[in-house]
Amino acid sequence: MTVDSATNSDPRAPETGGSVVISIDAMGGDRGPSVIVAGMAESARKNPDIRFIVHGDEAQLRRLIGRRKDLAGRCDIRHCDDVVTMEDKPSQIVRKGTGTSMWSAIDSVKKGEAGAAISCGNTGALMAMSMLRLRKLPGVNRPAIACLWPSKSPQGFNIMLDCGADIRADAHDLLQYAMMGASYARNGLGVTCPRIGLLNVGTEEHKGRAELKQANDLIAATAESGNFEYVGFVEGGDLPSGRVDVIVTDGFTGNVALKTGEGTAKLVGDFLKEAFANSFMSKFAALLAMTSLRRLRKRIDPRRVNGGIFLGLNGTVVKSHGSADATSVAAAIKLAFTLTQSGFQDRLAARVAQSVVANPGDTDETEVTS
Amino acid sequence: MTVDSATNSDPRAPETGGSVVISIDAMGGDRGPSVIVAGMAESARKNPDIRFIVHGDEAQLRRLIGRRKDLAGRCDIRHCDDVVTMEDKPSQIVRKGTGTSMWSAIDSVKKGEAGAAISCGNTGALMAMSMLRLRKLPGVNRPAIACLWPSKSPQGFNIMLDCGADIRADAHDLLQYAMMGASYARNGLGVTCPRIGLLNVGTEEHKGRAELKQANDLIAATAESGNFEYVGFVEGGDLPSGRVDVIVTDGFTGNVALKTGEGTAKLVGDFLKEAFANSFMSKFAALLAMTSLRRLRKRIDPRRVNGGIFLGLNGTVVKSHGSADATSVAAAIKLAFTLTQSGFQDRLAARVAQSVVANPGDTDETEVTS
Repeated sequence: MTVDSATNSDPRAPETGGSVVISIDAMGGDRGPSVIVAGMAESARKNPDIRFIVHGDEAQLRRLIGRRKDLAGRCDIRHCDDVVTMEDKPSQIVRKGTGTSMWSAIDSVKKGEAGAAISCGNTGALMAMSMLRLRKLPGVNRPAIACLWPSKSPQGFNIMLDCGADIRADAHDLLQYAMMGASYARNGLGVTCPRIGLLNVGTEEHKGRAELKQANDLIAATAESGNFEYVGFVEGGDLPSGRVDVIVTDGFTGNVALKTGEGTAKLVGDFLKEAFANSFMSKFAALLAMTSLRRLRKRIDPRRVNGGIFLGLNGTVVKSHGSADATSVAAAIKLAFTLTQSGFQDRLAARVAQSVVANPGDTDETEVTS
Repeated sequence: MTVDSATNSDPRAPETGGSVVISIDAMGGDRGPSVIVAGMAESARKNPDIRFIVHGDEAQLRRLIGRRKDLAGRCDIRHCDDVVTMEDKPSQIVRKGTGTSMWSAIDSVKKGEAGAAISCGNTGALMAMSMLRLRKLPGVNRPAIACLWPSKSPQGFNIMLDCGADIRADAHDLLQYAMMGASYARNGLGVTCPRIGLLNVGTEEHKGRAELKQANDLIAATAESGNFEYVGFVEGGDLPSGRVDVIVTDGFTGNVALKTGEGTAKLVGDFLKEAFANSFMSKFAALLAMTSLRRLRKRIDPRRVNGGIFLGLNGTVVKSHGSADATSVAAAIKLAFTLTQSGFQDRLAARVAQSVVANPGDTDETEVTS
């Protein structure tokens, strides 16, 4: 079943020649496994230090991978009979369970064979299975999904979390999101002292819901020990701004904001296309400005920011867009690679442990006080 | 004190020669009264049927209005000593109270002198004063702010409410928002049978908070009698889409979504500007495409959709952006004019009364059953 032997107990161990191993659910996306394999090949071409464990239909995957010379000798295929589809209800997902490529992909992280898992499948199912197999980090109440957002910050992106793992979040959850977001900004984006903001309907201290006022105090009190800067309340307009690196919010608000931003960017892009298609003169202008327009497209291309990270689990899981193309898949792989190589998972765990110490009442770990 | 006599007991009465009278708080905006008066002049030039009652510093307003020949004989100035500033805390606003231009502007609607009031001032203060002076419509629990959103719908805009009047909303509030939004879509945008959507984190029926599931049932049950189409749950990406005319949500989510959309559109616009400023070739291209780019700018220009409407009160109040320029102010005036001329306020009241009948348990009006 094994094309070659990329698997090892430590994904960054010398036995893999210093390679990072990424576990890929090849079956979950809207466009099928060929796009996923194309994305893997794109990553492999650019990055000699990457290897894959690929989960799905063996015959199909063997054929697809066999065609890509960049992937030769760098993939380990794990056959799975079943697939989680976008239409599956939670009950069906539980029934299919361990036989799916999604479960198998997560399992490779659990066993220490891979540094991170990636899936383009059903978000709800991926989170449910990740929680079941990897378990929450000690002290974490609600895991979160962190997404990247094009912005005017020096690194070109801001991080927002939670983007939809859980529709609720209390003040202590929001504090943990701040800590986890800071850790992600440091290890994923290289921001030394991340600036954290709490999403609200105004920047004045008296605004917003009770849990936001409480979270405001908690996060402010933790900033120094957490090695981040707290900028206070931010508004929706600050998501793409340069005054913040990490935006903290509950999963309901975060999901609406994420999709609103994506929808607005797409609308403006469509209007732009229509504007340039309007007359001979404007078509000619578009031709002249092609390089500039391509640069613009690249800056706002959602494919470049593909990859929501599940934070708060014993292992790194990256959720890629269901409709991801090869470029998107490669972007998600790059993110998973960067995080694995930086030792993100261990640092995140340490960070969360610190927040538990800071707020012992928050969790079951009340004995870990200091 | 009166420059001329535009005031009458009925803002659409024959005594005003069929004119619509709009009440303007000239003092609240970030840019001072000169911009407001310039916006009034722009409106008056295009619309012979409009007259104004203007509230603020009399000497200053008399000077500003005197310079605009389009406004000659069409303004009634009401002197006010005080102004509500953006920095005023709720306690200060209550203390200043009735002496302010904001209060006076609302008072003209209360007295029936004007068909609608407009202010560029502090949103919280404007809502608080409007509720105090105009009172809520019988049966309304929480008034809402409705905003326009550039979209692919035939009318070019979608309506979203609540955009921030109240950070909470229960299922019955959301039903009333649906009814009020439908009425606004008909009278403000001319949509005969508005399509209503309820904002959620997914379109599946099992998604979201408990109050959303309940509101989903309530709105669906009221669609036929309310003469609107209910499309069910919509997501953030649908805000600018052509599959819905009115998006219903609580004021916290609505405010975040509104500001996120504005921020994203601005970011893309800034990136576009940078892209075209990049080289000689792209600058030349921008010159050639100027007409097309102007058309694009017009389609996404937030100044064109200036004006949040307060819904659910005994009178129409339009909140204009604090940083509104003359074009924005003219857009808000046009909206207030259209709504007044259509008899919106009476129709809205009838619509709300109908929702009270549909859900008698929701209000004090339990005797109005059918």
